[in-house]
Amino acid sequence: MAKSEIIVQKFGGTSVANAEKIKRAAQRAIKAFDEGKQVVVVASARGQQTDELIADALEVNPNPPKREMDQLLSTGEQQSVSLIAMAIEAMGHKAISFTGAQIKMITDSVHTKARIKSIDTKRIKKCLDEGNIVIVAGFQGIDKDENITTLGRGGSDTSAVALAAALKAKTCDIYTDVDGVYTTDPRIFKEAVKMDQISYDEILEMASLGAGVMHGRSIEFGKKYNVTIHVRSSMSDKKGTLITHEVPQMEGILVSGATIEKNLAKVSMVGVDNKPGNAAKIFAHLAGAKVSVNDIIQTEVSEEKANVSFTVNKNDFTDAKKAVEEIRDKVGCQNVFYRDDIAEISVIGVGMRTHYGVANLMFGTLAKEKINIDSITTSEIRISCIVDKNQGDKALISVCKAFELDKPVEKRSYVK
Amino acid sequence: MAKSEIIVQKFGGTSVANAEKIKRAAQRAIKAFDEGKQVVVVASARGQQTDELIADALEVNPNPPKREMDQLLSTGEQQSVSLIAMAIEAMGHKAISFTGAQIKMITDSVHTKARIKSIDTKRIKKCLDEGNIVIVAGFQGIDKDENITTLGRGGSDTSAVALAAALKAKTCDIYTDVDGVYTTDPRIFKEAVKMDQISYDEILEMASLGAGVMHGRSIEFGKKYNVTIHVRSSMSDKKGTLITHEVPQMEGILVSGATIEKNLAKVSMVGVDNKPGNAAKIFAHLAGAKVSVNDIIQTEVSEEKANVSFTVNKNDFTDAKKAVEEIRDKVGCQNVFYRDDIAEISVIGVGMRTHYGVANLMFGTLAKEKINIDSITTSEIRISCIVDKNQGDKALISVCKAFELDKPVEKRSYVK
Repeated sequence: MAKSEIIVQKFGGTSVANAEKIKRAAQRAIKAFDEGKQVVVVASARGQQTDELIADALEVNPNPPKREMDQLLSTGEQQSVSLIAMAIEAMGHKAISFTGAQIKMITDSVHTKARIKSIDTKRIKKCLDEGNIVIVAGFQGIDKDENITTLGRGGSDTSAVALAAALKAKTCDIYTDVDGVYTTDPRIFKEAVKMDQISYDEILEMASLGAGVMHGRSIEFGKKYNVTIHVRSSMSDKKGTLITHEVPQMEGILVSGATIEKNLAKVSMVGVDNKPGNAAKIFAHLAGAKVSVNDIIQTEVSEEKANVSFTVNKNDFTDAKKAVEEIRDKVGCQNVFYRDDIAEISVIGVGMRTHYGVANLMFGTLAKEKINIDSITTSEIRISCIVDKNQGDKALISVCKAFELDKPVEKRSYVK
Repeated sequence: MAKSEIIVQKFGGTSVANAEKIKRAAQRAIKAFDEGKQVVVVASARGQQTDELIADALEVNPNPPKREMDQLLSTGEQQSVSLIAMAIEAMGHKAISFTGAQIKMITDSVHTKARIKSIDTKRIKKCLDEGNIVIVAGFQGIDKDENITTLGRGGSDTSAVALAAALKAKTCDIYTDVDGVYTTDPRIFKEAVKMDQISYDEILEMASLGAGVMHGRSIEFGKKYNVTIHVRSSMSDKKGTLITHEVPQMEGILVSGATIEKNLAKVSMVGVDNKPGNAAKIFAHLAGAKVSVNDIIQTEVSEEKANVSFTVNKNDFTDAKKAVEEIRDKVGCQNVFYRDDIAEISVIGVGMRTHYGVANLMFGTLAKEKINIDSITTSEIRISCIVDKNQGDKALISVCKAFELDKPVEKRSYVK
């Protein structure tokens, strides 16, 4: 007999924050079950619970060991899943909840940001076949010694998509408190519209550029294992945003979305000796200082000298400055400039691969607004400009208008 | 090289209720470690947390499935142990926390009141040998399928003593919010004194008679595996009460303690047919109705008829009445009396095995106070009288005075 289709539904913290919302999540799972699907629910910790537990930890230890932090934080999801199972049972359906350990969600041992290595789906499948709705704690796994690990903030998205992949589910529904992914941050550009569809590559770029919609790892899983991710509102039945491989229609879309990242600082090392190995020396030293570097720009200024600049997360700025001061003389650097009053404006779109003029439109728009561009970086599907922070919002808004991100795709003037 | 002595320290919910108390528990563990011991800490959930989680469960399901209840409640202890480990690390010592699953505390599958079957001490011993203080979540285990189980209220005591037994620790310290076990309830008899020592058998009787000091199962483990249990205050360094096998001195003590149980109801079935199998019929029927029966008294009143009476916990009274009404005609019962206005006063002491006059002193004391005795039951080390509830406190106080339970053992007039 053919098995029913498996669907994975993930509920974020705001979607299970209280008894009423837990019951609503339970009803959603039951609805899918009644439509003949086998349903796996993945849940995050309730509401602000993770933050509360972190506060509890800091009260006893200002620098809590990471293994114990994972042991502590994983309880939040365990509570959510047992409560969801109870709610489903109260509605007359069979349900069973599992921790990461119980379904052998094996990860590496990098506590607080572990990576999933394997999932044993045997027990889940058995329970599904017995008519259960299965509820799995997101965000958590165990390493080979059964130490509890967590996947980092937003890791429940990754748990859900990884489970969908392991169970060969076609779709993973991500229920959240917004109704989908927007062309840009609606808090800055009020006219931003919800996207019906976006490609894995685009949303990966958007996530890494500060859009904060989905956990990057979860998108990678979706892309690799061909799971369609449906980001949607837990408060309505409306269709949200499908994250999927590229579809033909996308070709016509120059730009899918725009982002602004304000939490950046920039280091410019001027007059570095233009010798093989110097860039490696600099970035090895930064890595050694645990500074995570974003964009790097290197330009040759003469046969002897080059300029090396890069951006870092603001949290890493102090460490970055310290590391740069240690290394600058060893690479013959003549001067260093530091800036933390910057914003990075990016446009993202697979369409720009085959269209010219995207860069021109972006630079022209900023010029018309008299916004100075500090530096530019590009990839195949994005263009980023660093501008003064106090011009950041204005820059984003003007770029959004230029690329018509206030209109649904089919109504944009440049889409044929 | 000889291994250091292992000590198990158990901290109850009130002893880890907030950051300050968690730090104090951490300091105690470190103190024992610095004295050269290998230290295993067992902890309960913080403060009122278990009650809060139960309330959360009832909000989504008035009758929560027990497996999910265990999944939910076990998080409370998991939080405590990780926080204690963090606190110990903050004080510069190595610590590692474990859930029941991580140390393979295997139980049967009777959710919410599981019984321990085995403990794998390998990982604990390895961590101790590496210089860690090991913190274990009390109250919880896993069954053979890795479902999380709990041992029932007070189950952390059992976890601690069972661990002490498995690790061949000589002593298990039970840190609590009282400074030991008292001769009786000081809320009723203000002059009650702390006992220095009491036997397993006596405290087992006291526990089953409502003294509410220690989880009965934990005492059984202590007795079976020869673990001395030290009940003491988490707020001071003073010696508490040692629970141990009988010691010679105990022979001189007629009575170690006295208890009062007010949460009782009594059923008297009068004129039951005096036939083999009738008692079995009655109590099998009660068991079928999930009524747990305490003391049973059966007396023959003639060749044809007998009286059967028994006490039940008040929570079971309604079910007991229903079950008795169903069965009474089948055993030829002529009349049934129900009472829930009773209290049971008991004195407990291994000394009474070899001394006469304990019963006389008890009955004489109650008579002098004009307290009517409804019924009497005895075991080798206790005598219990049921009296009117409104005379209960007065009865307890008079009996405590008669047996000099307001004095330390060596000052009692009858102890040679």
